[in-house]
Amino acid sequence: MRTYLVINGPNLNMLGRRETGIYGTTTLAEIERLIRDKAGELRVNVRFVQSNHEGVLIDAIHAAAGTTAGIIINPGAFTHYSIALRDALAAVDIPAVEVHLSNIYTREPFRHQSVIAPVCKGQIAGLGAIGYILALEALVALSS
Amino acid sequence: MRTYLVINGPNLNMLGRRETGIYGTTTLAEIERLIRDKAGELRVNVRFVQSNHEGVLIDAIHAAAGTTAGIIINPGAFTHYSIALRDALAAVDIPAVEVHLSNIYTREPFRHQSVIAPVCKGQIAGLGAIGYILALEALVALSS
Amino acid sequence: MRTYLVINGPNLNMLGRRETGIYGTTTLAEIERLIRDKAGELRVNVRFVQSNHEGVLIDAIHAAAGTTAGIIINPGAFTHYSIALRDALAAVDIPAVEVHLSNIYTREPFRHQSVIAPVCKGQIAGLGAIGYILALEALVALSS
Amino acid sequence: MRTYLVINGPNLNMLGRRETGIYGTTTLAEIERLIRDKAGELRVNVRFVQSNHEGVLIDAIHAAAGTTAGIIINPGAFTHYSIALRDALAAVDIPAVEVHLSNIYTREPFRHQSVIAPVCKGQIAGLGAIGYILALEALVALSS
Amino acid sequence: MRTYLVINGPNLNMLGRRETGIYGTTTLAEIERLIRDKAGELRVNVRFVQSNHEGVLIDAIHAAAGTTAGIIINPGAFTHYSIALRDALAAVDIPAVEVHLSNIYTREPFRHQSVIAPVCKGQIAGLGAIGYILALEALVALSS
Amino acid sequence: MRTYLVINGPNLNMLGRRETGIYGTTTLAEIERLIRDKAGELRVNVRFVQSNHEGVLIDAIHAAAGTTAGIIINPGAFTHYSIALRDALAAVDIPAVEVHLSNIYTREPFRHQSVIAPVCKGQIAGLGAIGYILALEALVALSS
Amino acid sequence: MRTYLVINGPNLNMLGRRETGIYGTTTLAEIERLIRDKAGELRVNVRFVQSNHEGVLIDAIHAAAGTTAGIIINPGAFTHYSIALRDALAAVDIPAVEVHLSNIYTREPFRHQSVIAPVCKGQIAGLGAIGYILALEALVALSS
Amino acid sequence: MRTYLVINGPNLNMLGRRETGIYGTTTLAEIERLIRDKAGELRVNVRFVQSNHEGVLIDAIHAAAGTTAGIIINPGAFTHYSIALRDALAAVDIPAVEVHLSNIYTREPFRHQSVIAPVCKGQIAGLGAIGYILALEALVALSS
Amino acid sequence: MRTYLVINGPNLNMLGRRETGIYGTTTLAEIERLIRDKAGELRVNVRFVQSNHEGVLIDAIHAAAGTTAGIIINPGAFTHYSIALRDALAAVDIPAVEVHLSNIYTREPFRHQSVIAPVCKGQIAGLGAIGYILALEALVALSS
Amino acid sequence: MRTYLVINGPNLNMLGRRETGIYGTTTLAEIERLIRDKAGELRVNVRFVQSNHEGVLIDAIHAAAGTTAGIIINPGAFTHYSIALRDALAAVDIPAVEVHLSNIYTREPFRHQSVIAPVCKGQIAGLGAIGYILALEALVALSS
Amino acid sequence: MRTYLVINGPNLNMLGRRETGIYGTTTLAEIERLIRDKAGELRVNVRFVQSNHEGVLIDAIHAAAGTTAGIIINPGAFTHYSIALRDALAAVDIPAVEVHLSNIYTREPFRHQSVIAPVCKGQIAGLGAIGYILALEALVALSS
Amino acid sequence: MRTYLVINGPNLNMLGRRETGIYGTTTLAEIERLIRDKAGELRVNVRFVQSNHEGVLIDAIHAAAGTTAGIIINPGAFTHYSIALRDALAAVDIPAVEVHLSNIYTREPFRHQSVIAPVCKGQIAGLGAIGYILALEALVALSS
Repeated sequence: MRTYLVINGPNLNMLGRRETGIYGTTTLAEIERLIRDKAGELRVNVRFVQSNHEGVLIDAIHAAAGTTAGIIINPGAFTHYSIALRDALAAVDIPAVEVHLSNIYTREPFRHQSVIAPVCKGQIAGLGAIGYILALEALVALSS
Repeated sequence: MRTYLVINGPNLNMLGRRETGIYGTTTLAEIERLIRDKAGELRVNVRFVQSNHEGVLIDAIHAAAGTTAGIIINPGAFTHYSIALRDALAAVDIPAVEVHLSNIYTREPFRHQSVIAPVCKGQIAGLGAIGYILALEALVALSS
Repeated sequence: MRTYLVINGPNLNMLGRRETGIYGTTTLAEIERLIRDKAGELRVNVRFVQSNHEGVLIDAIHAAAGTTAGIIINPGAFTHYSIALRDALAAVDIPAVEVHLSNIYTREPFRHQSVIAPVCKGQIAGLGAIGYILALEALVALSS
Repeated sequence: MRTYLVINGPNLNMLGRRETGIYGTTTLAEIERLIRDKAGELRVNVRFVQSNHEGVLIDAIHAAAGTTAGIIINPGAFTHYSIALRDALAAVDIPAVEVHLSNIYTREPFRHQSVIAPVCKGQIAGLGAIGYILALEALVALSS
Repeated sequence: MRTYLVINGPNLNMLGRRETGIYGTTTLAEIERLIRDKAGELRVNVRFVQSNHEGVLIDAIHAAAGTTAGIIINPGAFTHYSIALRDALAAVDIPAVEVHLSNIYTREPFRHQSVIAPVCKGQIAGLGAIGYILALEALVALSS
Repeated sequence: MRTYLVINGPNLNMLGRRETGIYGTTTLAEIERLIRDKAGELRVNVRFVQSNHEGVLIDAIHAAAGTTAGIIINPGAFTHYSIALRDALAAVDIPAVEVHLSNIYTREPFRHQSVIAPVCKGQIAGLGAIGYILALEALVALSS
Repeated sequence: MRTYLVINGPNLNMLGRRETGIYGTTTLAEIERLIRDKAGELRVNVRFVQSNHEGVLIDAIHAAAGTTAGIIINPGAFTHYSIALRDALAAVDIPAVEVHLSNIYTREPFRHQSVIAPVCKGQIAGLGAIGYILALEALVALSS
Repeated sequence: MRTYLVINGPNLNMLGRRETGIYGTTTLAEIERLIRDKAGELRVNVRFVQSNHEGVLIDAIHAAAGTTAGIIINPGAFTHYSIALRDALAAVDIPAVEVHLSNIYTREPFRHQSVIAPVCKGQIAGLGAIGYILALEALVALSS
Repeated sequence: MRTYLVINGPNLNMLGRRETGIYGTTTLAEIERLIRDKAGELRVNVRFVQSNHEGVLIDAIHAAAGTTAGIIINPGAFTHYSIALRDALAAVDIPAVEVHLSNIYTREPFRHQSVIAPVCKGQIAGLGAIGYILALEALVALSS
Repeated sequence: MRTYLVINGPNLNMLGRRETGIYGTTTLAEIERLIRDKAGELRVNVRFVQSNHEGVLIDAIHAAAGTTAGIIINPGAFTHYSIALRDALAAVDIPAVEVHLSNIYTREPFRHQSVIAPVCKGQIAGLGAIGYILALEALVALSS
Repeated sequence: MRTYLVINGPNLNMLGRRETGIYGTTTLAEIERLIRDKAGELRVNVRFVQSNHEGVLIDAIHAAAGTTAGIIINPGAFTHYSIALRDALAAVDIPAVEVHLSNIYTREPFRHQSVIAPVCKGQIAGLGAIGYILALEALVALSS
Repeated sequence: MRTYLVINGPNLNMLGRRETGIYGTTTLAEIERLIRDKAGELRVNVRFVQSNHEGVLIDAIHAAAGTTAGIIINPGAFTHYSIALRDALAAVDIPAVEVHLSNIYTREPFRHQSVIAPVCKGQIAGLGAIGYILALEALVALSS
C-alpha cells in the first residue's frame, strides 16, 4: 500500500480557532480524519506532519524520500517566502500538490504569489477542507 | 437534478492536437466524456460550452443565471486579461471553480496571474483532465 | 437632426441584476429611456448598441462614421484592456465621451486605468445613470 | 435654497491667460458667471473659492461643513499630490464632484493620477467649462 | 501550389480612411492586391482574412492547420494583449511572420510590446505595405 | 523648565468630527489638555501649533530653533509628501518624535510611507491620543 | 493581575554586544529588568521570550492565547519577511505593539517595510529601550 | 532696465544655519547681495522673494507676468513635488533657470527628480552660491 | 547609382562560429555576398562595415552623411544600450532599417528592447540572413 | 591554530542526491573532507555546521564569536530572504565568505539576489566544491 | 596658468548639422572658440577633446590627472549609460562640471538620468553654448 | 602548457592610484606579477590584456578562441552594461571566471547587477587581488 504525506505549515494547528471568517471552524484534527477516511476508501496510507518550524518541515520532506508516493502540502505563510521549503520539495523525487483552504487570490497581494507552486504538480485553492481530499484523489489517480 | 456548466475558453478545442508537451494528448471530447461520467455518478447534469469568442462565453454565463448550480471554467488565455469574463462571473450568482490543465506557475510569467481567480470559489491547476473532475466534485460537495 | 450613438459594453445588459451594490438597480432599458427623453428635449436622435462582443462594438463604431455627431460610450470592462476598441474610436472622426456608472477610482487598482480615455473628448465617472445624460448634454453643447 | 461650493485650485486664476492651447481662453470669472446662471436656473446658491494656497482650500472645505449641499472642485495641480486636500474632503460629509477642464488622460503621465478622485462622488474631465455646469446638475440631481 | 494565409486584425478594414498620418492612404484592398500580385510572381496562393473579432481570427488560424504553408499576420491592436491569438498561433504548426505598417517603437509605450512576436518566426515593422510583400518573400524562401 | 513643541498638521483640527471610525471621537483640544497634564507631571512646558498650511508649520519649526527641547509632530497628510516639512525638521537641531493616531500600516498603501520619519528620532503610530503622551515621555527621558 | 508577553526576535540576545553603533550598549537582560520594574509600577505581570527560531516565537504566541492581556514584540529581522509570525499574531486575539530599538526608517530600504505592523495595534520605533516601556504603558492604558 | 526675479523656496531662509555640511555657511542675505552686485555689473534689476509657503511663491510668479525678464528659482524641497509651482511657471511667459546649491544627484534618490525642470529653460546644480550668478548671466545673455 | 551602407555591430564577425544554435552557420562573408548579389539585381551599390567598437560604427555613420541612400544596421548587442549609436543615426538624414538575425522576442528579456528602433524607418527580426535582403529591398522601394 | 567555521544551510545535506544536474554528485561529507584536507595543508582548524533550521544557524554564528577566525557560509535558499541570518553575521565580528556551488546568476531571477552578500567580505559562486576551498584560502590569506 | 580640459562626447562633432531643432546651429568649433575667448579673459588655458569612442575619453581623463585644474564634460549619450566614463572621473582627483546643451529634462525619459552627475561637482543643462562658458567660470571661481 | 587570458576592463589601469579606499593600493602591475607567480607554480601560461576600450576587449576575446584554456575577467564598469562583452564571451567556447576586487554588493545598487555573470562559469568578488589567484586555481582545477 502506497503512503502519502500530508504536510501542514505554520499556524494551521490553530484551525477552527484562528480567523474563522477566513479559514472556517473545522479543526486540523477533523481535516486529518477526513483525509484518513478518504485514504481508507482509496486503499492508501497517509501520514501527517504539522509544524510552525520551517526546518521541521524540510527535515520531514527529506525523510519522505524513497518511502512516499506523494505529498499534499499546505505551506501556510511559508507559501509566500520559504524558498528553503521549495528547494526541499525539489530535492526529493516525489509528486506534490499544494493546497490552500482559502482563495489566496482574493486576499492581500502578497498572498497571491506562491514560491512553492513551481515545484509542485499542481495547486488546489479556495475549496476548504475538501481541497485536501481532492489533492489525495489526484495524486492517487496520477500515480496509478 | 442540479445542472453544472463546464466552460472552456479559446484554443481548448485544439486539445490533443495543440502543444501536446504542455497540454497532453487527451481531446476536449474525451475530457467532456470523463466529466459526463462523473456527473452521472454524482447524479447531476452537466452542460458544455467551448468558444474562442469572449462574447460567446459571456453570453453563456449570463444565460446560466437562475438555472445553474455551479460553473467549471477553464478560461484558457482569457485567464490573463479578460476582465469582461471576470465581470460576467461576478454578475451572476453562481459558484465557480477555475481549472487549468497545466501548472501555470511553471510557465511564462504572464500566465501566473489570473484575473478570473478573485471571482471564483477556488482554483485547480496543473492536474490535467482530472482537474475538471475534482472541480465538479468540489462544487457538488460545497452545494450539498 | 443630429444623431448620437450610445454604446454599452460587456455585462451592462445585466444592469439592475448585477452587483447592485456597485451598479444600482436601474436597468439598461431604463437608462436608455432616460437618454431618449433627454434627446427629445435637446432635439437630437439617439441610437443604442449593447454587446458583450468586442468585435460587435468595433463594427458599430466603424458603421457610425459619417452619420453620427457624437458617441457616448460606457466600455465596461473593455475600458481597461481593449486597445482595439480604442483604435476604433481613433479611426473614426467622431467626438466621444466615456461614461462610467461607478467611481472607478474607488475600486480595484486595475479599474483606475482607462485605455479608452486618451481618445475621448472627456470622461464622466461615478455619477450613475445621470452620467449618460450629462454626456449627451456635453456632446450637444460642444458641437453647437 | 441649498448652497453649493465651487473650489478652484492653484493657477486657475490664470485661466484665459495661461496655456490657452490646453485650457482655452475663457476666464475664471466667465466660468463662475456660467455656473451662477445655471445655479439660478436650478434654484440653488453657489459660492466660489479660488486659491493658490493649499491651506486656504482646506480651511474653506472645513468651513463648508454643515452649510453646504455639495462641492464642485477643480483641484488643479493639487489633484496629483495634495493628500491633505483629499483628507479635507473626506473629513466633511459633503458630496463632491471633481472637475478638470482638460482631458488629463491625454497629458503627462503624472496627470493621469488623481489622489482626490477616491473621496469624490464622481469625476468629469475634458469637457471644458461645461464640466462645472454638469457637475452642478449632477450634485443637484443626486441630492434631490 | 502552396497556400499562405494573410490575416489582418481589428480596424485594418479602415486603412486609407483611418489615422492616415500614421497608417498612410493605401486601403486594405490595395494592399491585398499587391500581395496577390507578388504571390502570382512567386507562384503561390494567398488567402485573406480580416476581422475585428478576436474569435474569428482564432477560428481562421485553427482552420488553416494542415493546408497552409505560412501565415502573415498584422494583429493590429491585438498585438498588445490577445494572448488567445498568440496561443492560437502556437497551437498550429505553421510558420508565421508578424507585420506592422507603422513603426510601433516610435508610438505609445504600450505599442512597443507584442505578445504575438514570441510565437512567430519573425517580425517586420514600420515599412508600410511593403512589409506584407517582404513577409511573403521570407516565408516562401524559408520553406523552400 | 524645558519647552516642547507639539505640532499637528492638516485636518487634525477636525478631530472628533472627522472620520471617527478611523480617528476616534476625542477632539484636538482634549488631546492637548491630556498632553498639558502630562507635561505638568513631568515638569516641562508644552506649546501647541495646528495648521492646515504647510508654510505655517515650517515657519513654526524654524521659530522653535534655540528655545525648544523637543518636537512632537503629527504631520497628518503631510507625512506622505511634504519634503519641505522634512527639510524644516532637518534644518533645526531639535529631536523630534513623529506621532500618528491611527495605524497607518493598515490603511491605503500611500499612507505606509513617511517622508518625515527619516529625520525624526522615532515614530509612534496606532496608539491613539496616548501616542502623544508617550512621545512626550520619550523626549523628556531621552534628553535627561 | 494581567500578564503581558514580551517577545524578542532573532539576534536580540546579542544586544549590547551587537552593532552597538545602531543598537546601543544596553543588554537584553537590562531591558527586561527595566520592563519588569515598569510592570511592577503598573501592577501587571510580564513574561519574556527571546529566540532566534521563528517557530519558537510562533509557538509562544499560540501558547499565549487566553492567558495574556497584550504582546510587546520586537520581531528583529523577522519584521521584514516572517509572514508566519504575522499570521500567528493574527491567529490569537491579543492586542500587540511592535517595538524597534532603532529608527528603521533611516536604515536600508528593506528595513522600512514591516509585514508585522498591519496585525498590531501600533508601532513604536527609534526610541531605544524606552520603546518597550512605552509599549507596556500603552497596552495597559488601552485595556483599562 | 530689465528686471529679474530671484525666488527661493522653503527652508532657504535658514541658509548658513541649516545643514551646513550640505548647504555651506553663506546666508541667503549674502547670496542676495552677490546677485545684486552682479546685477549692477550687468545693468539689470533684481527682485527677491523667499517663502516657505507654496502659495506665496505661486502668487509671486503670477504677479511677475508682464514686468519680469527672467526668473531664477531655487525651489528647495518643492523641486520634487510641487506641480502647482511647475504649473505657475508654465502659466507665465517668462524664461526661468532652476538653481540648486548642492548637487542633488549625490543625495537621496527622491532629490534626483525635479518636477520643475521641464518648464525651465535650464538647470544649474551643485555649484553653490555661484549657481545664482551664472543663472543671471545666462538669462541676461539669452534675452540679449 | 545609389549607395547603401550595411553595418554589423559587435560579435557579428563571429557569425557561423558563434552560438550557431541561435545565429545559424552562415558566415558574415556569406551574408555580405548575398546582399551584394541582391544589390546587383536592384542596380544599387552596397558598402559594408563591421566593428566591435561602438566609436567606429558611429564614425562610419557620420561619414555616410551626404553620400548614402540608406542604412541597413544590425547593431548586435548595441541594440540594447548604445544610445550613442542611436544618436548617430538620428544625427544624419539617412533612412535606416534595423535587422536582427534571431527573433529577439523569444530570447532574454533585455533583448526585447531596442534603443535603436525609434530612430529607424523599420525593423526586421528573426528571419535570418534573408532579413538583410528584405531590408535592402525595402530601402530601395521606399526611396524610389 | 586558528579555527574556521563552515556553515551549510538548508537542503545542502541532500547534496549528491538532490537536483544533481545543478549541484553535482559530490556529497556534503565529501566536500567537508576536501575542506578538512585543505585546512590541514594550511595548518588551521575547521568546524562544520549544517542545518535546515534558520535558528540553528543563527545560534551557531553567535556561538562562534570570539573563538573563530573566519566563516565560510553557503546559506542555500536562506541566501535570498533570511535577513535574520544576515543580521547574525553582522552581529559578530568575524570575516565571512559566501559560497555557492552553482552559478546563481544563470538560474531563476530570485536567486540572483543575496541578502547575505552585503555583510560578507566576499562571494564565490559557480565553482562547485572548489569554491569552499578557495574561500578557506582567501580567509586564511586575508587574516595573515 | 592653470589648464582646464573640455571633453565632448559622441555625436557632438556633428553640432550645427545634427538635429538643429534640439541642439542649435552653432558648430563645435564655434563653441570651442567661445570657450577659448573666455579662458583668455580668465587667464587660464583650455584644452579640447572630442571623440565618439568611450575609450578615448577615458584615456583622456586618465591622462589629465596631475596637470589639469578642472574638467568640463558634455558626455553626450554616454551621460545615460557609460559607467566606465563615470568611474574614470571618479578615478582622477579633478573637479568636473557636466554640461548639456539641451534641457535633458524635457526630452525622452531615458535622457533624464545621468550616471555621470554623481561624480561631478555640478551640472549645467539647457542653456546652450553658454553652459560651457558658465562651467568654466564656475570651475575657475571654485578653485580660486 | 595551457594558456589563460587575464582581462582587465576600464579604469583598472588606475589601480593603486584610483579610489584607494575602495580598491586598495596594489597596482595592476603588482597584481599581474602575483598571477604570473601563481601560474608558474601551477605550470600554466598567462597572458594579460587591459583596456579602457570595450572593442579592444571584445577583439581580444575573439582572438583567444582556440588557443586559450580559460579566461579570468574583471570587466570593471562594463560588468553592469556591456552586453557586447557578454556576447563576446558567449561567442567563444572558453570557460571564464569573473573577478571583482571590491564587494560589489555593498556598493551602489547599479553595481549589484552583472550582465557578464550569466555567461561565466563563476564569480569571485570582494577578496581583493587574491580573487585573481583563486580564479586561476579554479580554472586550472576545473579543466584538469
